Amino acid sequence: MNAVVVIYACALLAVITAMVFAIRVRSVSLESGGTTEEVARFKEISDAIADGAMAFLKQEYAYVTIFAAVFAAVIYAALDNPGTTDINEGAYSAAAFLIGAFISSVCAFLGMKIATIGNVRTTVMARKSLSAAFRVAFQSGAVMGFGLVGLALLGMLTLVLAFTDMIGNFHLAMEMVAGFGLGGSTVALFGRVGGGIFTKAADVGADLVGKLELGIPEDDPRNPAVIADNVGDNVGDIAGMGADLFGSCAEATCAALVIGATAAGIAENETARLYPILITAVGIPVCLITALLAQIKDNATSVEPVLKRQLLLSTILMTVAIIGVTNVAMVDSFTLGSMIVTRNGVLTSVLAGLWSGLLIGYITEYYTSHSYGPVRRVADASKTGAATNIIYGLSLGYESAVIPVLALAVTTYFSWTLAGMYGIALAAIGMISTIAIGLTIDAYGPVSDNAGGIAEMAHLGPEIRKRTDILDAAGNTTAAIGKGFAIGSAVLTALALFAAFLTRSGIDSLNLLSPKVFAGLLVGGVLPFLFTAQTMLAVGTAAFGMIEEVRRQFKTIPGLLEGKAKPDYKRCVAISTNAALRQMIPPAILVLGSPLLFGVLFGIEALAGMLAGSLVTGVVMALSASNSGGGWDNAKKYIESGAHGGKGSDTHKAAVVGDTVGDPFKDTSGPSLNILMKLMAILSLVFAPFIKSAHDTLVMWLGM
Amino acid sequence: MNAVVVIYACALLAVITAMVFAIRVRSVSLESGGTTEEVARFKEISDAIADGAMAFLKQEYAYVTIFAAVFAAVIYAALDNPGTTDINEGAYSAAAFLIGAFISSVCAFLGMKIATIGNVRTTVMARKSLSAAFRVAFQSGAVMGFGLVGLALLGMLTLVLAFTDMIGNFHLAMEMVAGFGLGGSTVALFGRVGGGIFTKAADVGADLVGKLELGIPEDDPRNPAVIADNVGDNVGDIAGMGADLFGSCAEATCAALVIGATAAGIAENETARLYPILITAVGIPVCLITALLAQIKDNATSVEPVLKRQLLLSTILMTVAIIGVTNVAMVDSFTLGSMIVTRNGVLTSVLAGLWSGLLIGYITEYYTSHSYGPVRRVADASKTGAATNIIYGLSLGYESAVIPVLALAVTTYFSWTLAGMYGIALAAIGMISTIAIGLTIDAYGPVSDNAGGIAEMAHLGPEIRKRTDILDAAGNTTAAIGKGFAIGSAVLTALALFAAFLTRSGIDSLNLLSPKVFAGLLVGGVLPFLFTAQTMLAVGTAAFGMIEEVRRQFKTIPGLLEGKAKPDYKRCVAISTNAALRQMIPPAILVLGSPLLFGVLFGIEALAGMLAGSLVTGVVMALSASNSGGGWDNAKKYIESGAHGGKGSDTHKAAVVGDTVGDPFKDTSGPSLNILMKLMAILSLVFAPFIKSAHDTLVMWLGM
Repeated sequence: MNAVVVIYACALLAVITAMVFAIRVRSVSLESGGTTEEVARFKEISDAIADGAMAFLKQEYAYVTIFAAVFAAVIYAALDNPGTTDINEGAYSAAAFLIGAFISSVCAFLGMKIATIGNVRTTVMARKSLSAAFRVAFQSGAVMGFGLVGLALLGMLTLVLAFTDMIGNFHLAMEMVAGFGLGGSTVALFGRVGGGIFTKAADVGADLVGKLELGIPEDDPRNPAVIADNVGDNVGDIAGMGADLFGSCAEATCAALVIGATAAGIAENETARLYPILITAVGIPVCLITALLAQIKDNATSVEPVLKRQLLLSTILMTVAIIGVTNVAMVDSFTLGSMIVTRNGVLTSVLAGLWSGLLIGYITEYYTSHSYGPVRRVADASKTGAATNIIYGLSLGYESAVIPVLALAVTTYFSWTLAGMYGIALAAIGMISTIAIGLTIDAYGPVSDNAGGIAEMAHLGPEIRKRTDILDAAGNTTAAIGKGFAIGSAVLTALALFAAFLTRSGIDSLNLLSPKVFAGLLVGGVLPFLFTAQTMLAVGTAAFGMIEEVRRQFKTIPGLLEGKAKPDYKRCVAISTNAALRQMIPPAILVLGSPLLFGVLFGIEALAGMLAGSLVTGVVMALSASNSGGGWDNAKKYIESGAHGGKGSDTHKAAVVGDTVGDPFKDTSGPSLNILMKLMAILSLVFAPFIKSAHDTLVMWLGM
Repeated sequence: MNAVVVIYACALLAVITAMVFAIRVRSVSLESGGTTEEVARFKEISDAIADGAMAFLKQEYAYVTIFAAVFAAVIYAALDNPGTTDINEGAYSAAAFLIGAFISSVCAFLGMKIATIGNVRTTVMARKSLSAAFRVAFQSGAVMGFGLVGLALLGMLTLVLAFTDMIGNFHLAMEMVAGFGLGGSTVALFGRVGGGIFTKAADVGADLVGKLELGIPEDDPRNPAVIADNVGDNVGDIAGMGADLFGSCAEATCAALVIGATAAGIAENETARLYPILITAVGIPVCLITALLAQIKDNATSVEPVLKRQLLLSTILMTVAIIGVTNVAMVDSFTLGSMIVTRNGVLTSVLAGLWSGLLIGYITEYYTSHSYGPVRRVADASKTGAATNIIYGLSLGYESAVIPVLALAVTTYFSWTLAGMYGIALAAIGMISTIAIGLTIDAYGPVSDNAGGIAEMAHLGPEIRKRTDILDAAGNTTAAIGKGFAIGSAVLTALALFAAFLTRSGIDSLNLLSPKVFAGLLVGGVLPFLFTAQTMLAVGTAAFGMIEEVRRQFKTIPGLLEGKAKPDYKRCVAISTNAALRQMIPPAILVLGSPLLFGVLFGIEALAGMLAGSLVTGVVMALSASNSGGGWDNAKKYIESGAHGGKGSDTHKAAVVGDTVGDPFKDTSGPSLNILMKLMAILSLVFAPFIKSAHDTLVMWLGM
């Protein structure tokens, strides 16, 4: 069977699946959701959320468009005819970049659209039964999950075929295709960093004034920031997560293609060439089968196990699929540099990535779910106040990074030993091969969360609220798993890009015992810390703006606190949007500027040291920030469920402090570090020829 | 002039200086300190502190003795005749180890002794004048500063001469001398980690029950943990800091000797061989001149500038001294591997270390003093509660690491480029060449702090308390500077040891692009996070024990709260001691076990990767933990001085949360990371032949 046909067929299957699920979600009638009055109320609320989400996206995409246009021009100028080939590398790279950015934006847009349609329909179906509500939320998530993978595959394959045809040199063509990954990653920068700041500025702002100053409950419609908060859930966990994983998928594939193009035995064989894309493609039927098995019973304890079983099931099925694809599509052996790689080496690499992803997910759950010791100890520590809550929560995060990092080290070691740098890229692809299911479950979270918010704001009955709470609680746990998984795949992807960058630069040995490389390592190591500080302060600054606006509205709008007047939701959304896009500038400059500046000043080898250093600290910081945040969140929820005095007790107040600190940790800084690691690496990959020649020119000028 | 004579003369000068200062401090009569009743009271209190300190040291040294004996046996067994020479490497290394451990212990003991004599005498002289009190506190510190350097020099030089003579091979002899550094570092492990846990368990325990539960002031004699708290100041900042810097001095010198012994042009020239020791030696007259210029005026604003000027002055004078020594003692040029190093290259390396130390100190001050923006912003953020206080404090720490790491990267780059790995060791020696003054100022801090505590507990008049407060406040700022400085020197020392380890293992190129090295880098990168989690949890666990004991005493001792009965101070000291020594076991196993285990399992190159990884994250974690802690402390002090509502306001309460979180950050985890970085490196250096042969045997067994 022809690999191209298989990939297009799988991509089409994904797109059709997404469309079918979308039609099903839309077909839920809002009018059946209650009395005319109730329907009017939750329509109004869900419209406000949808409008806010679109307002944010519209403004974000305005910025993305300008930025992408300028950046494409820079790519074109920097890479235009560096003299080695008669192909205009700048034009091809810029085109691939724009296509990648465009498809990623479309995916995020569709994800947001369906999430804001699905949230209120989940609320409506919660009146009927838990399982019916679950189905709507899950299907909403699946639209994003399958749609994104389908479009990514279509884009990548078409680009690979077209560029190979137009350029006539597979190796060179793949170096141009890498621009596609850069495009995806650039949108992810806006989605993760900008989106991360948006969501937490709204959340912290809403909580600090609403809960702490005025004592009104969460999701109370009187709070002017409440719609922004609900919009933020979608912005962070749907647009941000989607763009992040789209980036990982595109980048890991690009890295594999670039490295594979240098391998004798692969470069000449079209099926073997497309092997990295084939893996993601066969993931689609696997994930579809898994998704169709997602059925819950109508009781509270059934949701979380079903979601977790989805991950296990897709991993097991995927193992079988990968074995099959590898046997059919991969050559017996090929030569990579001086190394001979066998089919079994390739297979082991992909499977190592796949299974270590699952392991990282489970470890993340252990450290962030209140069913286990670590979160319980944070809850215990809250009894002696906020300080001990913070100390134990930070320690939890630091400790939680150990096993995932060891798993990544083992995966790196084996895939690298068995299949060279190609193996690392394949491990990354293996880890995200079940991305359709991963994204489905991720997007399910904010849909359920919003559904609960709408039920609360529309004053629906307690039995409905109880059902949406059950859905939401399960989503919280799986969200933490999803974050761990996203970080793991980002690390392997970044490492694969690092390998591709070195391959493209013709470096196959990098002496750590040289002053430049070691100094680069030290400098790279500090960047994730600076980036974390910048993103946390960005949330702080943006939240202060939100706090002032909320206070202002309560002061100037008569009758607001009594529920007689309506707050100005739109203004809060606008404030969050503007603050997010303004505050993301310093971290964006750091991520985009440092590899280019460092590379041009000190050369490719120093830059390689810097990238390695940023990877080493980036992975640990990302994991520990995400898990500390998740741990604090669930320690608070554990206390709210009645432990240590329950809601309102001093212990609970201490736990709320940790939860608030954890918000920017887990939803802004932690996940944004994924972008830092990947974007710096792919930027180096795409700009490698420019950096090299600019540095050489600089050295010549200085007469060194 | 003969180098040996110069070094011995300088060492003797240091010892005599220490003795003269000790006699001066002791000569202050306690009887002049007030009414008979007052004298009796503060005598009682200072005796309790002195007894507690000695009780802690006694028990710690019992553990150190057992541990050192076992460890010496391990060294003997592991390094005994690895077959390459007819010298018993195990015996020599074990002997050097025991001597290093012994001298370090003696220094810490003397430092503690004089501090517990000086503290109460500072209180007494505070009755007379601020400048008189300052003189006593400063001289107490100087006893430790000069005594330690003098003894370290005596020990090192004697060992170098004796081993060279006995072994007859300078190169091999220096490899054995490295055991001296390991001995010092092992004592530092107990001092920094054990001591760090002790001091913060006492501090947090005393504060959480005393200040928060019962609302009694700090340093109140009714609080059973108050003596333990005051003992802790000495344990952490005198015994711990002393052992840490003793380790840095001994280890950096050992590293320079080991590397220098491989250089053609140095190995044959006795004066050039001893150049690394000579630098530290000429630091003694420089520091003495500086110390004699430490005179303050009798006003509040004069203390801090005088202390800071000491650092600048000693650096300027040391620059002159280093230029002189280098011209006299260093050869014109020598050959290191394939590299030709000139005298100017050597000079630049030493000076780069010296001046970047000062820069790091000043940057640390900027981030931790409330005269500048960063701490002010943390104080501002406390207005919206504990959560924003934590977020801003953590960000402050992350950001504060950037410039110091860049300074270290630049220093590493230049010294390595100009003088190879020898240059790195020299940069480390340059940075700590003014150690006598650095330690004097460090030890001045807890003496002043204790003096204030004694004044408070003995109910002396407010004018005395005000003077001791001025001394204490200046000590807080310089303590933060000292910590930054200690971390900087630890990094360079660890890097120098890393270089010596590679030199000893015959590795002059380490390919980062090999699976083992990269996996090692990832694993190494996570160790400082695990270590930080362990040490922070150790403080938490130990503090809970203390809290229970304090609560128990208030419950069971009738009249304690009313001041009619006396608490059982000794029991609290014993609890802190036992908890500290028990809780330090997991981090100690991590530090000692991981390089040996990893090296034996995966070989020297993987171990080198691991060491590099732990250095990269260790330095950033250490700097940010120390500076976050210092920032929180001074944000609280800034608010207490009247800002944002002052003491007792909600803003102040929020700032107290940050301060409590900062306690284990800045006094346990942060400084302990110094030990992690250095100890893992010197352990690898000393055990290098064992690791290599054990790994080879393992590979043979496994038939790989």
